[in-house]
Amino acid sequence: MRVTVSGAYSTKFGKHPGSSARELLTEACLGALDEADMTPEAVDEVHVGNFMGELTDDQGHMGVMTADYLGTAGVSATRSESACASSGWAFRNACAAVEAGIADVTLVAGVEMMHATGIERLTDALADAADNEYENSCGLTFPGIFALIARDYMDEFGVTREDLAEISVKNRANGVRNPVSQYQEEVTVEDVLEARPIAPPVSLLDSCPITDGASAVVLVSPEYADDEGIETSAVVVGSGASTDTLALQDRDALSRTLSAERAAERAYENAGVTPEDIDVVEVHDCFTVAEALAVESLGFFERGEGAYAAVEGETASDGRIPVNTSGGLLAKGHPVGATGVAQIVELTKQLEGRHPTQVEDAEVAVAHNVGGSGASTTVHVLQSEGVEGVGGGS
Amino acid sequence: MRVTVSGAYSTKFGKHPGSSARELLTEACLGALDEADMTPEAVDEVHVGNFMGELTDDQGHMGVMTADYLGTAGVSATRSESACASSGWAFRNACAAVEAGIADVTLVAGVEMMHATGIERLTDALADAADNEYENSCGLTFPGIFALIARDYMDEFGVTREDLAEISVKNRANGVRNPVSQYQEEVTVEDVLEARPIAPPVSLLDSCPITDGASAVVLVSPEYADDEGIETSAVVVGSGASTDTLALQDRDALSRTLSAERAAERAYENAGVTPEDIDVVEVHDCFTVAEALAVESLGFFERGEGAYAAVEGETASDGRIPVNTSGGLLAKGHPVGATGVAQIVELTKQLEGRHPTQVEDAEVAVAHNVGGSGASTTVHVLQSEGVEGVGGGS
Repeated sequence: MRVTVSGAYSTKFGKHPGSSARELLTEACLGALDEADMTPEAVDEVHVGNFMGELTDDQGHMGVMTADYLGTAGVSATRSESACASSGWAFRNACAAVEAGIADVTLVAGVEMMHATGIERLTDALADAADNEYENSCGLTFPGIFALIARDYMDEFGVTREDLAEISVKNRANGVRNPVSQYQEEVTVEDVLEARPIAPPVSLLDSCPITDGASAVVLVSPEYADDEGIETSAVVVGSGASTDTLALQDRDALSRTLSAERAAERAYENAGVTPEDIDVVEVHDCFTVAEALAVESLGFFERGEGAYAAVEGETASDGRIPVNTSGGLLAKGHPVGATGVAQIVELTKQLEGRHPTQVEDAEVAVAHNVGGSGASTTVHVLQSEGVEGVGGGS
Repeated sequence: MRVTVSGAYSTKFGKHPGSSARELLTEACLGALDEADMTPEAVDEVHVGNFMGELTDDQGHMGVMTADYLGTAGVSATRSESACASSGWAFRNACAAVEAGIADVTLVAGVEMMHATGIERLTDALADAADNEYENSCGLTFPGIFALIARDYMDEFGVTREDLAEISVKNRANGVRNPVSQYQEEVTVEDVLEARPIAPPVSLLDSCPITDGASAVVLVSPEYADDEGIETSAVVVGSGASTDTLALQDRDALSRTLSAERAAERAYENAGVTPEDIDVVEVHDCFTVAEALAVESLGFFERGEGAYAAVEGETASDGRIPVNTSGGLLAKGHPVGATGVAQIVELTKQLEGRHPTQVEDAEVAVAHNVGGSGASTTVHVLQSEGVEGVGGGS
């Protein structure tokens, strides 16, 4: 795959009580277009990632809504939904449209508005990502699902709550430097352990927050960028996606994420890279245990070793493989339908050398976006424009 | 575009009180795979069209659910949503994945379960396709929206309720011969005029019914079909999509569907065809006036003439341009997220020469799937395998 990124923007993540989804989407899209030095008229196709607009905003048809509010009614536009991997999929579909020659310029955005809905209705809405017949209907919601996963992982590998807490400590520290991050205060291991229990062993500080926010990137075909003299900073060279069973009960093990392992394998093959080539990563740390599993799925650590990566500083911004320099979902926040594109925004800044927590010589980056309990995952590989020797595998 | 169809199947449309979305999806997918003489293991990627599963089934993440229940957890899978054009878009995204070389075999399905939700909640859910801030919130729902459109069209062109009723008469007659059709009884113009008023001038028989149902098609790359010796019957040669403003109030005219005009223009250009090349058509007749507008948007009739097409028999199965030989949404039914794929299923049968209302020498077919009040449209052009001289434009 070879699709170029020419602009990327996220709104501030957090509470936006005075704004609606269309306002944040418009801010993100105009921000990304402005970075690309393009106007909305240049866009051929709009892909929007959103998980639960029908439940939180009484609004479907958000692809059209986004195009309309940009003043570009007439372009083709749609929405992708794959639970919390909704905009990972919107991004993948938009890349496919460019790669297929259907569009020269696609605008990919993601949004979720989570605060206006009360916490009970919101928890119920989020549970639509799980299996309604076998999970939600039994009262299992996401903190419970990840508590089951965390218990299984801790039992199998002798991991402690302290070990997992280090992931929250690292990501909160990174969030302090990220201007769009919802949380900008450091926490300690003790803070995480003593925070309010949500679903033991998961505490409030093991969990990502409830977030409003939107993100957008502009994708162009390399030919169009050449012809139009458009400046591009990063290139998407690999895309992989996979699924697992919708319900936890149907999996052989909770302590690994098969959908992520397969998506990573496919993305690496598509890009012609190996884990050793990768310099910086954004993973889907909806809960602390999710980051431990993610860095294993992506091939950076053996099974059971992912939990120690943060403890030993290996995933710190100056570590062997920096993970979630943005603050991740734990600090930056997790407006679910925006997260996949928000990861691309952060990685584009890394590849351009202008990230607030810049990784030295970052040339190859990976984004890992998960839906539900790991029932779906998308993985994308990006590299800096002009870098030779890796990428562009097919 | 050049993507081949190798299997197509619709469940019976109507009431399925004992079934859930996953059951109908599984029936449709296995039916399509069986027609293709393939097993689920051959599928690389699943695209599901669904509009409002979060509201009717408390279930998002339907791409994963479909893959899981087919026993193929591990494939890549997602959902597309563009209101009533959800599976038109799932089909377009699946075609793009094949065309981009991302997948050799994609399975595209659509589903909607509408009966289990009470009529008041359902009407409210369907209204999520409109603009929540400027339409739903003022009490405008879809029968009202299409009543406004019908009034404008009737006023502008001197069309009568009798003229529009002929569309319902024609489609109901076609539905009688279609085994999957929800309604299988003929109606008269008088029946339509005297039916219960829904939103005058729209009566119950000017309106499509509430429907449960699912449809699926298997798409393969021509190279894969050749290599594997897979029998294919139809080829997708053109895809076009477009949008209009989300809210009616922002449009210059209600009596035309600009999104459909643009989508058709793009699909025809992509396929290298003109309206004169087309032999058979499925259009989105959610209300009688919608078919009149559709046949104008697609270039078969001048503005204002579409209403007379059924009156004069031009859109009958033996007319100049047969429209909705399936019975259309008015008779076959409209499980909204399934409709776009259901149209492809019907047209594939026409191109294979085995449709219950077969059009003689049908070689080029067009599907027209509309979201909301015309805020989005997808148009696809298909042709019989082996036909030369049209199609394959790019």
